Amino acid sequence: MRRVALGISYVGSSYHGWQSQIDGQTVQDHLERALTSFAAAETIKTVCAGRTDTGVHALMQVVHFDTHLQRPASSWVRGTNRYLPDDISVQWAQEVEPSFHSRFSAIRRRYAYIVLESPTRPALEHGRVGWVHYPLELEPMEQAAKILVGEHDFSSFRASACQALSPIKQLYDVRISRKGAYWRFDFEGNAFLHHMVRNIMGCLLAVGQGRQPSEWMSHVLAAKSRKAAAPTFSANGLYFLGPVYDAQWRLPVDVAAADWLPL
Amino acid sequence: MRRVALGISYVGSSYHGWQSQIDGQTVQDHLERALTSFAAAETIKTVCAGRTDTGVHALMQVVHFDTHLQRPASSWVRGTNRYLPDDISVQWAQEVEPSFHSRFSAIRRRYAYIVLESPTRPALEHGRVGWVHYPLELEPMEQAAKILVGEHDFSSFRASACQALSPIKQLYDVRISRKGAYWRFDFEGNAFLHHMVRNIMGCLLAVGQGRQPSEWMSHVLAAKSRKAAAPTFSANGLYFLGPVYDAQWRLPVDVAAADWLPL
Repeated sequence: MRRVALGISYVGSSYHGWQSQIDGQTVQDHLERALTSFAAAETIKTVCAGRTDTGVHALMQVVHFDTHLQRPASSWVRGTNRYLPDDISVQWAQEVEPSFHSRFSAIRRRYAYIVLESPTRPALEHGRVGWVHYPLELEPMEQAAKILVGEHDFSSFRASACQALSPIKQLYDVRISRKGAYWRFDFEGNAFLHHMVRNIMGCLLAVGQGRQPSEWMSHVLAAKSRKAAAPTFSANGLYFLGPVYDAQWRLPVDVAAADWLPL
Repeated sequence: MRRVALGISYVGSSYHGWQSQIDGQTVQDHLERALTSFAAAETIKTVCAGRTDTGVHALMQVVHFDTHLQRPASSWVRGTNRYLPDDISVQWAQEVEPSFHSRFSAIRRRYAYIVLESPTRPALEHGRVGWVHYPLELEPMEQAAKILVGEHDFSSFRASACQALSPIKQLYDVRISRKGAYWRFDFEGNAFLHHMVRNIMGCLLAVGQGRQPSEWMSHVLAAKSRKAAAPTFSANGLYFLGPVYDAQWRLPVDVAAADWLPL
């Protein structure tokens, strides 16, 4: 058997999230059907680096799978893309050591959230941004974000359906930038709980619009209860930038679409 | 009667172009139905600054219409947006002099074309970019573009269905820029023939990939025949940035979505 890793980009809007479901309308379902069509003789099952919800996009989801087939990397890319819908594509393929695991070998994960701050709703970027119609202030959000950096019990930002073994995660960095009416929030951590980024976004925006002071974030974090936090913010503006692996695996670290984001 | 101007953003992918049709599936059809629903007592008909084809997007289409109703500008924006699909939105509204005409008052029009240069097809930006899988060279494209700037008979770049009275147009500027795998081509002219930007793009890309030398553009232009030019390039990456009006009209000159484009 050979183990192959793939980098996948997709728009999450039309799919029921990443994870395979009975209805067959998830990104994983489409990918596995495409891989199986291309492989012809084998049914291919994949494991991903980080599941995404309905409406969440991925610049570089990474999956691995095992196969008896020997094909050049470019052939896995082009052959699989022929069978995929227009808004999902394999960006790269690479044969990896059998000890590589897309999920367990990932040492960090990176997400970005993009928000449009505008009195009028988006159209061109509909489904690609979260939207707030009130003004946001940078400094209070940066203060609040700083409180979350480090190793913490993130239970206050955890969806009830979350299957993680522990609510304790390490958040390495939160960066906030702005270009015109668009705000970008970058998150890097060892792993993320279900809805964690969207729940943090709800709280950061409550602080950014002045409904809560920055220090409120300490109370939310300390409460270890979902009830203490703001409502889960829209999935529309969330992008899974991709996992980070040790350099020993020699996997591509970026995809063209990283430059597609406006900031 | 009052005359009102609107700035409209939309994703062209789901519509049969701008111009009203029997099937009712154009952007103009959706906008006029929404305006009429909001106005309730009147049927509203609009005139636009520049028609767009199926698949072409608009950052700021401008329309005007006449109405007996007196409503604050913000109410035209919010009220109409309630009835519009998610990928069309009114960005601003403003009452204008009766002598203002969205089409005839426009002294210039601006378009941008975005191309992804990548061996693998897009997913995240599917429908939002043209795609070439071969490398492009900047300098020959800039040389070729320079040949087109000025007042010329653009018959070689004119679709057979074009209804313009004259093929002679003034092209003020073509600018080419690059960010990572994305190229942006900016066009500014007094007016554009049907398919003119997409036909010019086909030729510029033929030069950029080395299939034709820069000087070939002179022959194409001089031929005044569609047969001399390259095939019409995809509608997917074309954005109508908007018309330019004399400052006397005091209309907004930009929309938030201008910053959404990656470069």
